[in-house]
Amino acid sequence: MIRIEYEDLLAYAEQVLEHIGYPSGKARITSWALVEADARGVPSHGLQRVVDYEKYIKEGLFRPEASTETVYETGLSAVLDGNSGIGMDIASKAMRICLGKASETGAGFCSVRNSNHFGMAGLWAEMAPPENCVGIAMTNTEPFAIVTHGRERLLGTNPIAVAFPAGRDGCFLLDMATTTVPHGKIETYARRNLEMPPGWAVDDKGADTTDSAAMSELFKSSSPFGGQLMLGGRGEILGGHKGYGLGLMVELFCSALSGGTWSRHVFSSGYGGAITHFFAALRLDLFGEPSKISELAQSILDEIRASEKAEGQDRIFVHGEKERMRRMKSLEKGVPLDEKTWEEMVLYSQRFKLDLPVSTGGK
Amino acid sequence: MIRIEYEDLLAYAEQVLEHIGYPSGKARITSWALVEADARGVPSHGLQRVVDYEKYIKEGLFRPEASTETVYETGLSAVLDGNSGIGMDIASKAMRICLGKASETGAGFCSVRNSNHFGMAGLWAEMAPPENCVGIAMTNTEPFAIVTHGRERLLGTNPIAVAFPAGRDGCFLLDMATTTVPHGKIETYARRNLEMPPGWAVDDKGADTTDSAAMSELFKSSSPFGGQLMLGGRGEILGGHKGYGLGLMVELFCSALSGGTWSRHVFSSGYGGAITHFFAALRLDLFGEPSKISELAQSILDEIRASEKAEGQDRIFVHGEKERMRRMKSLEKGVPLDEKTWEEMVLYSQRFKLDLPVSTGGK
Repeated sequence: MIRIEYEDLLAYAEQVLEHIGYPSGKARITSWALVEADARGVPSHGLQRVVDYEKYIKEGLFRPEASTETVYETGLSAVLDGNSGIGMDIASKAMRICLGKASETGAGFCSVRNSNHFGMAGLWAEMAPPENCVGIAMTNTEPFAIVTHGRERLLGTNPIAVAFPAGRDGCFLLDMATTTVPHGKIETYARRNLEMPPGWAVDDKGADTTDSAAMSELFKSSSPFGGQLMLGGRGEILGGHKGYGLGLMVELFCSALSGGTWSRHVFSSGYGGAITHFFAALRLDLFGEPSKISELAQSILDEIRASEKAEGQDRIFVHGEKERMRRMKSLEKGVPLDEKTWEEMVLYSQRFKLDLPVSTGGK
Repeated sequence: MIRIEYEDLLAYAEQVLEHIGYPSGKARITSWALVEADARGVPSHGLQRVVDYEKYIKEGLFRPEASTETVYETGLSAVLDGNSGIGMDIASKAMRICLGKASETGAGFCSVRNSNHFGMAGLWAEMAPPENCVGIAMTNTEPFAIVTHGRERLLGTNPIAVAFPAGRDGCFLLDMATTTVPHGKIETYARRNLEMPPGWAVDDKGADTTDSAAMSELFKSSSPFGGQLMLGGRGEILGGHKGYGLGLMVELFCSALSGGTWSRHVFSSGYGGAITHFFAALRLDLFGEPSKISELAQSILDEIRASEKAEGQDRIFVHGEKERMRRMKSLEKGVPLDEKTWEEMVLYSQRFKLDLPVSTGGK
């Protein structure tokens, strides 16, 4: 593991993205989103993605020059067509539209079709609390998950992010895949030769599996069978049908409200990336004095944190707190990158003749 | 099990509720909500609740004569104070306010404080699709659940319901507690002397337990320790922190946005019921032609249903479908009541000298 000063890494990643085909503004917002993920300890959504992004540009899935079109609009809402452009650029525009509409009317909604990977959903939801709004961001993804009693990969990991303003914490930030684990976690287990716990995935026969390497292969194969399990696991005993319902709800908000493509077909259009998103902003003063609401939220979070701990536990976290702590450490000691990601950055510096940023030497 | 003709049961329950203290309009909406739950095969939210409701009226938790006040209002939103009135009456008013605001502006939101049990959350969300809106209903409840790494009962089962218009299906209707199971399920297991599967609850030491009788006692005890697990179960391996996050999100929408009480303190005010709710309606034409959106949603549901089944399964359901099937059967053959609930209805007929409805003889 190596740590790089935040601003240095941001500037470097921006240069790399420009060299692989990103126009400058889109390189900047993408670099920011990726470096933020690494800084928060979510490397699955960090700079390790750049190699894939380059591949997607070559394959025509990502179209860096594409413009985002507003195809439908009301005082409260807009529907955007991303034309297979850059997900982070599209997401930040969509959330800005929500916040603009909210500032005029009280609430703003934006559905998006034909987009691409937009990074951590939480980054976009989190734009709302500083403007005294609740923020929501959702997206579908490639199909990785099976549904209750099903066998085919149909749903994406379909994350939901909700940012709720909360006093000195800034916000409560829920940012969760509706599958038991994010897809990247299975890939990480496979790379490290680790067995998965039962409850993460089923094989192509629909049986529980702990073989991460086999699952990783399966995801790359042409077989449509076997995949991740939705939150709550297999069957209905522990609520797998609820995770399936949450994932399907995300699918309907993202694709049905945008006139777009659902996870199952998101990369099979033969056209370009067709990921769909949904964003919302809801002004706190729809419900009263914003500072009072935010303080009430803070007091609930504080009471939860101060409550009795389970045996062997010394701390209860609320959502977004761990990532904030890691981010502060990253700002102080540098953003952590694993060996493989760092090697990829080194290769880019050689290919494009860029000055590599220097390690902070931090642990 | 006995089956009673839907309209007969509705009229009978209305009379019973009037005799235990409900004013007539509130008796009607409550009877409807309870009979609908029984008709849909969700007896935990059906007529078996009437005995408790009578107790709550005597204890001053439910105040049947209370008026609902609008304490804050904007063009898009309202905050209601239920003054510890009847939950179903308050919920139906709140959702009507959302739909009224949505018909004028495109979207409507309503948060509610000082309310009581409002029955199945789905009933209120479901009011939206016939008006070409997406509907959302959430509520907190008594504290039944522990949080990740915690030991005290802090959160309610905090259900979320989302109704999304969908072609000939009418709607996709997700209606889920954010705990692994609804609270009533543990009570049902205890009454029937059944062991629970691991993953539903932990005891007062924080250890996994399958002893439903002991848990049922624990819930009635003064000990604050031990309780239900949030969706995803104990710890973080299978995503228990996600269920905790969803439950906490419901808590913030319901109590922080209404200036009300969170689950932990909901029955400890020494005042009356202080349950909080949140409702929303979002007009489909914020995003395009409603019939096209609804048909696109329908096509996604149809594709899921038609996909390959897991071994040993012959059908994939989407959310709301099982309940619709049971409701149709109940309309045809009568609404099912279990022995105990029927006995309670018989006792009411004796106490209040009411004509008992007659069994349809259906199975």
